[in-house]
Amino acid sequence: MNETLTNELVSLAHRLADAARQETLQYFRGGGLETSNKLAEGFDPVTVADRAAERVMRDLIEAERPDDGILGEELGTKASTSGLTWVLDPIDGTRGYISGTPTWGTLIAVHDGARVVMGMIDQPYIGERFLGGFGKAEFSGPHGAGVLKTSEIKDLAKATIFTTFPEVGAPNEGEAFKSVAKHCQLTRYGMDCYSYALLALGHVDLVVEACLAPYDIQGPIGVIEAAGGIVTNWTGGPADQGGQVIAAATPELHAAALVLLSAHV
Amino acid sequence: MNETLTNELVSLAHRLADAARQETLQYFRGGGLETSNKLAEGFDPVTVADRAAERVMRDLIEAERPDDGILGEELGTKASTSGLTWVLDPIDGTRGYISGTPTWGTLIAVHDGARVVMGMIDQPYIGERFLGGFGKAEFSGPHGAGVLKTSEIKDLAKATIFTTFPEVGAPNEGEAFKSVAKHCQLTRYGMDCYSYALLALGHVDLVVEACLAPYDIQGPIGVIEAAGGIVTNWTGGPADQGGQVIAAATPELHAAALVLLSAHV
Repeated sequence: MNETLTNELVSLAHRLADAARQETLQYFRGGGLETSNKLAEGFDPVTVADRAAERVMRDLIEAERPDDGILGEELGTKASTSGLTWVLDPIDGTRGYISGTPTWGTLIAVHDGARVVMGMIDQPYIGERFLGGFGKAEFSGPHGAGVLKTSEIKDLAKATIFTTFPEVGAPNEGEAFKSVAKHCQLTRYGMDCYSYALLALGHVDLVVEACLAPYDIQGPIGVIEAAGGIVTNWTGGPADQGGQVIAAATPELHAAALVLLSAHV
Repeated sequence: MNETLTNELVSLAHRLADAARQETLQYFRGGGLETSNKLAEGFDPVTVADRAAERVMRDLIEAERPDDGILGEELGTKASTSGLTWVLDPIDGTRGYISGTPTWGTLIAVHDGARVVMGMIDQPYIGERFLGGFGKAEFSGPHGAGVLKTSEIKDLAKATIFTTFPEVGAPNEGEAFKSVAKHCQLTRYGMDCYSYALLALGHVDLVVEACLAPYDIQGPIGVIEAAGGIVTNWTGGPADQGGQVIAAATPELHAAALVLLSAHV
């Protein structure tokens, strides 16, 4: 891609995140939150903010780049004629959102049909944004801006591992996670997509999750790969379609965890 | 206490938190972090920031209120001759701190020998502060300031429950937590002391933890009680000395959870 195009995509991604922030913050911790159950069983709330934030992002994309495709969590799929598709999760971590934790985020990615070429993780309440792609790996936040770089940790015994729910997914997926975590120095939970941002920042070394949708992981893939990390599924294949995902700071850590995970796939 | 004294205590608490912020932020996510193991087994890092933050707070207290006692996590106890004791945890949630999550906090309380009369939870990275005591229950943060008020949730089936680690503590303590959580609508992990702030804000309805020290819970007690919530141990007694702690938004929720927890004490 030429630089004019990549600059245009980065600029649009920032403006999408800016527009989504207004919608998500309007309802966060506020009185206007309306939740409903997307699944008959379990607890997967959809909020007014979720739909409103996707709406404003789609409107911007359709106005500025009408030939690009859109895959959004809430409002479905629009086919691409340009070869590029915007992959949007307006509020990743709705359980975090409804309980007030600043761990949810707006995830934005551009996919070229083969792979993720750019990703963004935006945390509106803290005011932090993480971008990766086209040679950029950068963040900005309440205490300044900087470059993203994953850690150099190579040994599981020195690694910090994160996942959102201790159950992870099905029983075998929970066992798979435990088989890696028991070798790690520190295991933490509950951070939603913010875990991936912390991995790109170099503070978390492994994130292992299951049951992800494409829009849950494509934003993080763009950010983490640009920061020097690796994101695959649990058998080492592409993770852009979601499912069982491992993100690692180094190839060595990735390989060590993959041996353990693959026994449970 | 007269208003001159209570205003002085509130003012000093804010200045303690301001001073601690400079120390904790200096090392957070930075290169200067030095960790060592406080426990021979397990993982309980103490950072340079932890000690530096307690030092600046102690210096301020000793300069301005030399007759007050001090109980600090890192630097020990100073006896009180005024009847008041400052209870300080410079970085509550050191595991969160070293892994970059904005869920740790500086906890400050004033204890009058019988009970906590004022508490503060400060989250420096986000820039949020929660204060309770002397008729105040208030917060300030990146998107403004407001009043703290716990939720009105009375039924476990509608409640959101938090704890930091899924294991909670000893096996019976983990079972006790599960016996409550299985009746709740949503269970979340990993928020350190930020959970108590979310309870005071009305977004979390129950926090259940074990193995707490007095300085881990006295700041939250002051904040939550002022916001209308209840904090006790698992048998309904005072929680100011730590141990097994339950914080609840309403008396009904507290009573319902206590019945379940007390079977495991």
